[in-house]
Amino acid sequence: MVGNEGENGEPNFGYVTPENLGLFTDLYELTMLQGYHGANHNPRATFSLFFRELPPDRGYVLTAGLEQVIAVIETLSFGERTLSYLRKRGFKNDFLDRLASFEFTGEVRALPEGTPVFPNEPILEVTAPIFEGQLLETLLLNQVGFESLVATKAVRMREAVERGGNDQSLVDFGSRRAHGTDAGMKAARAAVIGGFDGTSLVSAGETFDIPVYGTMAHSWVQSFADERESFSTFTEQYGDDSVLLVDTYDTVEGARIAGDVADEHDAEVGVRLDSGDLVALSKDVSEIVGDSPIFVTSGMDEYKITDFLERGGVATGFGPGTALTTSEDAPSLDLVYKLTEIERDGEMVPSMKLSSGKVTYPGAKSVRRKKREEEGDSDANGERYETDVLALRGEYVSDGDNLAGEEQLVTVFENGSRVYDPPRLDAIAHRARERRRKLPPECRSLRDPAKYPVEISDGLRELTNELQAELEKT
Amino acid sequence: MVGNEGENGEPNFGYVTPENLGLFTDLYELTMLQGYHGANHNPRATFSLFFRELPPDRGYVLTAGLEQVIAVIETLSFGERTLSYLRKRGFKNDFLDRLASFEFTGEVRALPEGTPVFPNEPILEVTAPIFEGQLLETLLLNQVGFESLVATKAVRMREAVERGGNDQSLVDFGSRRAHGTDAGMKAARAAVIGGFDGTSLVSAGETFDIPVYGTMAHSWVQSFADERESFSTFTEQYGDDSVLLVDTYDTVEGARIAGDVADEHDAEVGVRLDSGDLVALSKDVSEIVGDSPIFVTSGMDEYKITDFLERGGVATGFGPGTALTTSEDAPSLDLVYKLTEIERDGEMVPSMKLSSGKVTYPGAKSVRRKKREEEGDSDANGERYETDVLALRGEYVSDGDNLAGEEQLVTVFENGSRVYDPPRLDAIAHRARERRRKLPPECRSLRDPAKYPVEISDGLRELTNELQAELEKT
Repeated sequence: MVGNEGENGEPNFGYVTPENLGLFTDLYELTMLQGYHGANHNPRATFSLFFRELPPDRGYVLTAGLEQVIAVIETLSFGERTLSYLRKRGFKNDFLDRLASFEFTGEVRALPEGTPVFPNEPILEVTAPIFEGQLLETLLLNQVGFESLVATKAVRMREAVERGGNDQSLVDFGSRRAHGTDAGMKAARAAVIGGFDGTSLVSAGETFDIPVYGTMAHSWVQSFADERESFSTFTEQYGDDSVLLVDTYDTVEGARIAGDVADEHDAEVGVRLDSGDLVALSKDVSEIVGDSPIFVTSGMDEYKITDFLERGGVATGFGPGTALTTSEDAPSLDLVYKLTEIERDGEMVPSMKLSSGKVTYPGAKSVRRKKREEEGDSDANGERYETDVLALRGEYVSDGDNLAGEEQLVTVFENGSRVYDPPRLDAIAHRARERRRKLPPECRSLRDPAKYPVEISDGLRELTNELQAELEKT
Repeated sequence: MVGNEGENGEPNFGYVTPENLGLFTDLYELTMLQGYHGANHNPRATFSLFFRELPPDRGYVLTAGLEQVIAVIETLSFGERTLSYLRKRGFKNDFLDRLASFEFTGEVRALPEGTPVFPNEPILEVTAPIFEGQLLETLLLNQVGFESLVATKAVRMREAVERGGNDQSLVDFGSRRAHGTDAGMKAARAAVIGGFDGTSLVSAGETFDIPVYGTMAHSWVQSFADERESFSTFTEQYGDDSVLLVDTYDTVEGARIAGDVADEHDAEVGVRLDSGDLVALSKDVSEIVGDSPIFVTSGMDEYKITDFLERGGVATGFGPGTALTTSEDAPSLDLVYKLTEIERDGEMVPSMKLSSGKVTYPGAKSVRRKKREEEGDSDANGERYETDVLALRGEYVSDGDNLAGEEQLVTVFENGSRVYDPPRLDAIAHRARERRRKLPPECRSLRDPAKYPVEISDGLRELTNELQAELEKT
């Protein structure tokens, strides 16, 4: 087996497994933990996971990654391998004993996966002894940030397809360009949340129960004496499941040969286009192959799909890769995990920092989403989101005589026990589709979307001003 | 333990481990493999791993990831978990038996890690029965592409520091924004290859024997009654190892408090700046803390470092995060793995495809690097790279009376056995530094670098033209 212990020329793949997951953290988390421990300082704290700004051209972010957060919280532990490394690095034995018995005892509230979220709204809040809450930071940011980015990119491609009045299938073809293996896995999962039909990545199919699709590579075609032989050999074995890659030499000629081969084998084969003027070629090819599936790959993203459909390209499916899996035009989300509440003298008090340009709203929060009925809009199930209210947790936010809007955060852990069952992936995708359609259409634009209104509640605004004034005074 | 088998609400982290690594592949690879097997078609083939275009503003790419390739080749296998999934997906038993006994028997040639490489030059070539070579595609692209991207981004930041006439330390702080856990691990490794001093990611430190660094977070400061108490509690425990984050409330005041606390504890503490006008603040803070280390974070990349140093900012180290770990301005490399040679009637013959705009050079290759002596340039050890020649493997490329340049590809596997010991990470970083300095300075510019000359040998050019004409004729 590939060791993670390799040194001096012993090749090391560098897996992250349950055995070393506890070390997937920034050193300062452990330094602080030992410091909290050494100072006998372990107040309860609330940490809020949120972003301050939307990535370019995004009107919202679609949340994803909560299932991984749950898995981390339920299983994070420190065994002999991790402890022995930390001992070598100079961490003290009594602290390591404490780590060895690490268990999460706190509370987690979160937006379910597949929820549209806006700047400053908590995607997740952890309330726990600071020793526990602090330890989770790096992993939570790493997992939720990336999956949310990809789900958000994926939903844009689904939007592009829908806007073209179409229902082409979308399959993630990006694993080879993903940033490592974990990115490949999580991108496949997040893509489904955003509206993709499946992935080409077999391990993601196995692990997350996602439909897996594939065609053939140019190397298949080149490995035979000619294109006809290569298509014929494939179709003989795979029959109607065959999708033949027709652009190795001449695309239109390739499609003709594919048609011949299909006839010979009495099979309904599909074709894939992967280069050239895809719009023109897809039209030419569709005249040859008729109703057979045409799968289009090569640099696909929401803009290329839009353009392809607007210019009358013919396709039954698209296979976006790099753009999806790296969220190419927005490869990062400025997701942060900030302390917003701390226990002092037995009571939780709101906290914030002032660092220029990086002010955070203090306190544990509530995210309330207000909607109105809108008749005749079947897309949105007759409802449209109007405004969010970011409020303090427990604050009464009125809307006329009623409590305004619907709370979006759900409780996931209570006293360290999970009280929430993560839905199946198809249910999450369904939720995402439903909620996306309730957003104001102008917030869903693929370019320069309108800003969705998020009000700051009176209570939160007053508290923020108060605290800010107080901190600036000292 | 976190299962990878979760379904119906059983939370699943989605690890990639040796147990499921065989499935980290695009479905079409397995479909083709079963097809090759079913057709009893297993010619030897050469696959070449290369990119066609440099990412924006890059004059070269620095290779990284070969150690992971070696680990994959030496350990890739299919056990019961993977086979049972494939069986359920309809793969046939005799094919699965073949997979179960998978072993690599071929040859691998590669550029050692830390080598500058240019478009169309193979970073790696695999010559093996097509069944074996094909199977490696997805993993090799995934690992080498990402690590090379990050090593290339890292070296740019090191250049920025050196251009400022400085030797600040550079530490990878990006794990929280990395695309998943594997990206965090491999980015830390690749950053060292590119000239970083270490990482904040503890698991990368453990796995790859990289120095690990850290400071403290705002939450540490906020968790105490005031900044002074927080600094004092930390310094009491960590003494000279303390790096105090001074921007939670007011940076200059924070630095004063840090100075006081250092005096009280008779410790030499460092400070970290993470927000605001970093140049101005660093100057102010340096007047307060004197020679103490000043560590600057917050959105650092090669451009910000350059600007910071040009404007007279004072720092002993930088902690780039997001920009490094996502290779933010160039999050993907168009790395491909193409069949360039195939066995026909017992002989290896060159192969290429014609797909518009995506022509590949046929045949197994040689990368020859020509250099000239350059006196008085200590940076470059008295040598400067002049031109590369991309040639056919075994082709005699003359330079006057001599064989031109030095072969850059080394043999890594021969008949399935490894004949190459991967160097230690510090040796790779040393190699990278040496070689980078031999490049023409204009190719190392951080903006619009000059194109390094790569000649196509006569033999390769003739073969390409010949094959192209032949293919276009048919």
